[in-house]
Amino acid sequence: MRTLIKNALKSETASDSLTIKGWVRTRRDSKAFSFLEINDGSCMANMQVVADAGIPGYDQVSQMTTGAAVGVTGQLIESPGKGQKWELHASSIQLIGEAPADFPLQKKGHSPEFLRSIAHLRPRTNLYGATFRMRSRLARAIHRFFDERDFTYVHTPIITASDCEGAGEMFRVTTLDPAKAEAQKFENDFFQKSSYLTVSGQLEGETFATALSNIYTFGPTFRAENSNTSRHAAEFWMVEPEIAFADLNDDMDLAEEFVQYLVKDALENNEGDLEIFAKFVDKGLIERLEFVANKPFVRCSYTEAVDILLASEEKFDYPVEWGVNLQSEHERYLTEVHFKSPVTVYNYPKDVKPFYMRLNDDGKTVTAMDLLVPGIGEIIGGAQREERYDQLLANMKAHDLNIDDYNWYLELRKYGSCPHAGFGLGFERMLMFITGMKNIRDVIPFARTPGNCEF
Amino acid sequence: MRTLIKNALKSETASDSLTIKGWVRTRRDSKAFSFLEINDGSCMANMQVVADAGIPGYDQVSQMTTGAAVGVTGQLIESPGKGQKWELHASSIQLIGEAPADFPLQKKGHSPEFLRSIAHLRPRTNLYGATFRMRSRLARAIHRFFDERDFTYVHTPIITASDCEGAGEMFRVTTLDPAKAEAQKFENDFFQKSSYLTVSGQLEGETFATALSNIYTFGPTFRAENSNTSRHAAEFWMVEPEIAFADLNDDMDLAEEFVQYLVKDALENNEGDLEIFAKFVDKGLIERLEFVANKPFVRCSYTEAVDILLASEEKFDYPVEWGVNLQSEHERYLTEVHFKSPVTVYNYPKDVKPFYMRLNDDGKTVTAMDLLVPGIGEIIGGAQREERYDQLLANMKAHDLNIDDYNWYLELRKYGSCPHAGFGLGFERMLMFITGMKNIRDVIPFARTPGNCEF
Repeated sequence: MRTLIKNALKSETASDSLTIKGWVRTRRDSKAFSFLEINDGSCMANMQVVADAGIPGYDQVSQMTTGAAVGVTGQLIESPGKGQKWELHASSIQLIGEAPADFPLQKKGHSPEFLRSIAHLRPRTNLYGATFRMRSRLARAIHRFFDERDFTYVHTPIITASDCEGAGEMFRVTTLDPAKAEAQKFENDFFQKSSYLTVSGQLEGETFATALSNIYTFGPTFRAENSNTSRHAAEFWMVEPEIAFADLNDDMDLAEEFVQYLVKDALENNEGDLEIFAKFVDKGLIERLEFVANKPFVRCSYTEAVDILLASEEKFDYPVEWGVNLQSEHERYLTEVHFKSPVTVYNYPKDVKPFYMRLNDDGKTVTAMDLLVPGIGEIIGGAQREERYDQLLANMKAHDLNIDDYNWYLELRKYGSCPHAGFGLGFERMLMFITGMKNIRDVIPFARTPGNCEF
Repeated sequence: MRTLIKNALKSETASDSLTIKGWVRTRRDSKAFSFLEINDGSCMANMQVVADAGIPGYDQVSQMTTGAAVGVTGQLIESPGKGQKWELHASSIQLIGEAPADFPLQKKGHSPEFLRSIAHLRPRTNLYGATFRMRSRLARAIHRFFDERDFTYVHTPIITASDCEGAGEMFRVTTLDPAKAEAQKFENDFFQKSSYLTVSGQLEGETFATALSNIYTFGPTFRAENSNTSRHAAEFWMVEPEIAFADLNDDMDLAEEFVQYLVKDALENNEGDLEIFAKFVDKGLIERLEFVANKPFVRCSYTEAVDILLASEEKFDYPVEWGVNLQSEHERYLTEVHFKSPVTVYNYPKDVKPFYMRLNDDGKTVTAMDLLVPGIGEIIGGAQREERYDQLLANMKAHDLNIDDYNWYLELRKYGSCPHAGFGLGFERMLMFITGMKNIRDVIPFARTPGNCEF
């Protein structure tokens, strides 16, 4: 029976016989024994193994090089060395799988670019192991947050014929043979119409919120944007809650609580993984996380925000005036310099926002909101939705949408309509915030970007 | 402050003032008061509301027809009626959104086919509300199961250039304009090569298992199969755990424990939702669930299974002989008639299984396993993977795979290779088993099938 190193290291008591299995990180030999550091990916820490010469399996110790898979059985005893509580005094040792000398992860630093080219091996490094364990924990925390609040998890469709944002930039999904002329006839395609990969599950999420009250989606979304930046990927995961009988204030309450919950969870339940980011990736990480976890969000209307930015002495690359979308530099000024706290900006000009947001009585702004955090700027965007049939129809016409495609969406406003609201959190953006990792390619197991679809 | 009906009905004590919001299911008027049944989707049960004539908002009571959105504030008092503990004696009542007379979900039975055509409204019915709450609970139970066992959740890519099963039938993903000639040149496409929607995250999952030890995926997968059956959808969710330093026995242990965990969880934590399936969908449901929850799985090799089937008196549509794949009728005979318990069949002929399964010493069978349950047949399929480099390479050649596309997969066998195993659970198939629902279209929020990509 194998014990995960994570659990062995948490032992309360010594043990006479315990078996671990994992991969060799380092080995040092002396005449009488060898020291091995074994990692099994269950946690950052290695198990230190002392293997006396002559124990069963020791004859193969020279093949137990960095990267080799091994099994060790022995006594778990208190470690005389510093840094770890326990070590394993081997009674037998087994070579399971060798790692030849060309194993690319020998003990030395590697560039992120090189590691992306061996994305099938990089989770075996400390940094990427920690990244993907944090990714898993963040997903868990998201599900737990909504579970504790009676939300129903909904799987909205990935393949869709509608374009939530009306923004284009979608991947087409097809079974037609592109080499044949009939590729032009969508009625011959699998779904008998043009179909695409979804950019958001929000519209479908609304149908469930107006039936089950509180719902959320958590799944992959896609953008066929030809952007080669550190923040864009063609495939990424989104979290989109939607709450019925709720207005913009309820939405801001939920979003702020959500962000603080996730950040606190990362600070409290990371089993040592956060250290490596604070040490090697971003010295200011813990401070920034505590800033967001503990300071209340300041709420500020878009109009107030523009006034603050205009009154500031700051030189911005993008000029500010009422009616423009805020850029990351503006958002960071508000949270980092002006308010020195997380900020929620609400009531944006209608012309910079999508059709489904609720028009305010001023006729100029909509019930949009963005949550801003230091280092990143916007981390969540959301809105109260337009629940009035006539107004939504007018919005759709103003946005040149094909009404026939959205009859089902309009019907939510015809039958038992109610105020409702929701928001979207880019999962990778939150993970980058929590780990300090700078490139989205490094927090996705196998990232998809223009020209990259390997593995 | 709104209280969910689910929580109001669980109250320990009466309450002087409580507000619910939801949709009218039925209303009966008398001279002095009205009875309303309100549902908010948080649970199957309605809140019964007694609204005396003349309270604030009562003047609009005639518009509170089936489907209308309303809010009610009042006293939560013990109900004199049978069937519910609490009812709400309204002090005020509010019409939030009307439902005109053409609201399609008036109180009467509707065919599943009709309800699929209004998939944006069907979660407002008892049966579909229960189905999608069960779907959410099942997803939660899956995450909880793996969390309790120290598994890391991995998001494997949706867009891929490789074909895990080697089976074809994949959707192509493209940004090329099909009306232009360059659509034939994949090097001009977004990823500069042909790319597809994944049919399985297993191969990528293996890269993480051989780094982090125990992992699972849970995400959408796709088949472009032109099948119009009650069991096939083009888009469905799969759960795929992968465990390192594990063999076929470990795999069968995990899979059997997993199935029983999920079924027990559905029996114990369904908040009354299971009743509706047992009552209206499948009278034998609870019995079948308890059968699987409580009876140990019998393990039986494929060869033994074929002998049993050959020795039986049963007339099968598909003849049995050693070397054929088992059909649903065979699987159901084994579990329902012969063993009268859940069954795990293992060691299948290599020719009916994919390239990645481990060849047994007999040279004829591979370490595949299928879990069989009554009513459905196979619910899980899995295998110990081929961890030997040379053997895997030989398998790939025998299956005519393009080796260059799988170099990364082969490298897992070159560097620190170890025995490992995993399985796949079709999420919707499990949900159909748990609810008794007969058509996969009725357990997916917005199902995608040939010719159907609505909403």
